[in-house]
Amino acid sequence: MAATYDHARPALAVDCVVFGLDDGALKLLLIQRGLKPYKGEWALPGGFVRIHETLDEAARRELLEETGLQNVFLEQLYTFGEVERDPRERVVTVAYYALVKLSDHNARSATDAAEARWFEAANIPPLAFDHGAIAAAALVRLQGKMRYQPVGFELLPRKFTLSELQHLYEAILGTVLDKRNFRKKVLDLGLLVPLNETKMVGRHRPAQLFRFDTRKYEALRKRGFNFEL
Amino acid sequence: MAATYDHARPALAVDCVVFGLDDGALKLLLIQRGLKPYKGEWALPGGFVRIHETLDEAARRELLEETGLQNVFLEQLYTFGEVERDPRERVVTVAYYALVKLSDHNARSATDAAEARWFEAANIPPLAFDHGAIAAAALVRLQGKMRYQPVGFELLPRKFTLSELQHLYEAILGTVLDKRNFRKKVLDLGLLVPLNETKMVGRHRPAQLFRFDTRKYEALRKRGFNFEL
Repeated sequence: MAATYDHARPALAVDCVVFGLDDGALKLLLIQRGLKPYKGEWALPGGFVRIHETLDEAARRELLEETGLQNVFLEQLYTFGEVERDPRERVVTVAYYALVKLSDHNARSATDAAEARWFEAANIPPLAFDHGAIAAAALVRLQGKMRYQPVGFELLPRKFTLSELQHLYEAILGTVLDKRNFRKKVLDLGLLVPLNETKMVGRHRPAQLFRFDTRKYEALRKRGFNFEL
Repeated sequence: MAATYDHARPALAVDCVVFGLDDGALKLLLIQRGLKPYKGEWALPGGFVRIHETLDEAARRELLEETGLQNVFLEQLYTFGEVERDPRERVVTVAYYALVKLSDHNARSATDAAEARWFEAANIPPLAFDHGAIAAAALVRLQGKMRYQPVGFELLPRKFTLSELQHLYEAILGTVLDKRNFRKKVLDLGLLVPLNETKMVGRHRPAQLFRFDTRKYEALRKRGFNFEL
């Protein structure tokens, strides 16, 4: 339905940077654009905000329509408003980032997007619009958060080994961490509950499984800590 | 100049939560609305984003027009998009927060705003729209930042005493801190440079003056720390 206003208005969009963890590698979910501009190129899932929905609702709707994902951890990242960021016209976009367990979710393509696919976060193709900069900002936010809040609950399976947790940190930070030092620090946080279960990985000895202490996790998420790595 | 679009669009605004420090008290800069809705009530300085300006430019322009402030530390906070947050129509607002030294700036009212005035942050009047919630979110962000980043450079005079720094932390956190403990922790950060100057405060003995080590300040801002208070 057409609408007329006294002054020109920017269009308002949402875009989602979706991170997943797959076999120790940090992944990013991208969609291949089915429409102009940048038709056929890779981009973040997203689209225009409707007049009767909140920003969070718009982000969740677009994520579902374009990738099939729902019930994911979603948080607002930053709003990008450079004047020339979209060749069509002035578009301001509210960026979100999402963390999903790949085991729980099977991202598929749908409606507007020709295809949805997981890429290694360290090796993504050039993206449409300023989506490359938005994805980079989301990674910096995630890396920053790891230093003062627990992260991983949304990315790891419910039961995990210390190696899997370390691989998560290494995948997000893009560095190799000292195993003994990492284990000591992470156990000192009192965040992990050891389970009476082990997991066989290759030909190594069985590895102890842990789960997060949900209450402690939430408390640390609010209070913050300093995890020097 | 009127504009017509295929679909209805939210209006896009910016609003600024401006913090200042005055004699050890945290202050918030509010404007009294000169126009409907909420005419005569207190609100955050802000207004609509123009089609050819970035969001940061819009925030700086509105701040200058409504309060006379310029060249201040300004950072994007969060974008608020509840559907009914403005009684006129759908308005999404990108909120910013600013930190200013009251000694450097004389906020005055101008153009749209009938009046600009500093209020004690702990004792502000009811605000128009959802501005009370936006101001509260800015204070939570500022309190959170203090735990992992140096804060105060923008709020304190260039030379300050340890008591003035402690009062800043107390004003933002809304608590009383132990003097000896605070001094030890803040000196351990290596952030302060002692000056060959003292300051007389009332009938106490002269207090040592300090300044921030700008390079260390910037490094800690990027790297973060954990300042347990």
